[in-house]
Amino acid sequence: MRIGELARRTGVPVPTIKYYSREGLLPAGERTSPNQVAYDDGHVRRLKLIRAMLEVGGLSIAAARDVLAEVDSPHRTVHGALGVAQSAVTRSASERGGQEDWERAEAEVSELVRRHGWTAKPENPGWQSLVQIVVTYRDLDRGDLLVLLDKYAAAAGELASAELAALAHAPSTDGKVEGVVLGTVLGDAAMSALRRIAQEDASSKLQGARRSA
Amino acid sequence: MRIGELARRTGVPVPTIKYYSREGLLPAGERTSPNQVAYDDGHVRRLKLIRAMLEVGGLSIAAARDVLAEVDSPHRTVHGALGVAQSAVTRSASERGGQEDWERAEAEVSELVRRHGWTAKPENPGWQSLVQIVVTYRDLDRGDLLVLLDKYAAAAGELASAELAALAHAPSTDGKVEGVVLGTVLGDAAMSALRRIAQEDASSKLQGARRSA
Repeated sequence: MRIGELARRTGVPVPTIKYYSREGLLPAGERTSPNQVAYDDGHVRRLKLIRAMLEVGGLSIAAARDVLAEVDSPHRTVHGALGVAQSAVTRSASERGGQEDWERAEAEVSELVRRHGWTAKPENPGWQSLVQIVVTYRDLDRGDLLVLLDKYAAAAGELASAELAALAHAPSTDGKVEGVVLGTVLGDAAMSALRRIAQEDASSKLQGARRSA
Repeated sequence: MRIGELARRTGVPVPTIKYYSREGLLPAGERTSPNQVAYDDGHVRRLKLIRAMLEVGGLSIAAARDVLAEVDSPHRTVHGALGVAQSAVTRSASERGGQEDWERAEAEVSELVRRHGWTAKPENPGWQSLVQIVVTYRDLDRGDLLVLLDKYAAAAGELASAELAALAHAPSTDGKVEGVVLGTVLGDAAMSALRRIAQEDASSKLQGARRSA
């Protein structure tokens, strides 16, 4: 198909398609004559994946490029794609506060990971984020809210098993690798969205209970 | 204290403190002489809260301003602060895809909310995000991954109850309102971080099991 048809089928404007192509997110089409390029269903799918990462997942162009390079790599694995997708969605932690606070928080996170029987290492993109969050809660004297971390961790552990089980049904390595990318990028957004709905519900029920008390 | 001392105690540079003040995030200090302004512990705490929202939570200046206006409102409530904080951390959903796809996804989300016994309404900031996510999964023919939504929802429901229970221990309305803001802004980040650690663990255990099989 020509670029106009590709735009029509995906809802992505032609200049945007050209931009993604220049930025290395979308493979070039096949040149069929000096001024005509043909695209196929693979381009349709790739454009949908790009839009999912950028618009729904909020990734930067550079982060999406890293993820797609892994998706396209001949050496791609589910575990490798998970690492790259995780790095892409994680904001880097800026080290603030005293070194002592930071070390204490590091030790707390290590202990939490050990308590949940996890083998993950401090190189995991979530690890430093979590240390920064603990430092922040402590800095604001809100250590009271840290009791929630064990509950989050227990839920995260259960969900991770369910996520990998869902992936196991995908028929091919490509399907699994794409699934782990989507699960990381959209799964986070889905969990956050559901947390908002559940929190509103819990809060309004509590408010109602207080009113009728 | 003077602004230099405020900067030293919070680690926030003087020009940044002035910027937050101009942007309406930090209340003005008390002018004690024509060229001297005094700040107090309230300013220290507020600066820490601002940094938590901007640097750890990734909020924009405008979103942080909205949240702080609610924190400072004489009519503040936990339920109100939750709504404002939720809106601040939610990326707005851009409606893409056909109207039919969108309506089908709306119906799926309504059904999910009903199934979990929630009273939340489509105005909840998470609702439209979730509809967009469902549209995206369907558009990519990855309806197989939607089975995870019920698991996320069940976990989100349990966590919301635990979050509100943790808040109940805060001694004052101010403490509760601040707690709900931090819980929304940092709680999302904490959950995402723990998901990365748990996913790495689950994935590496699965990889290990395959290798030894």
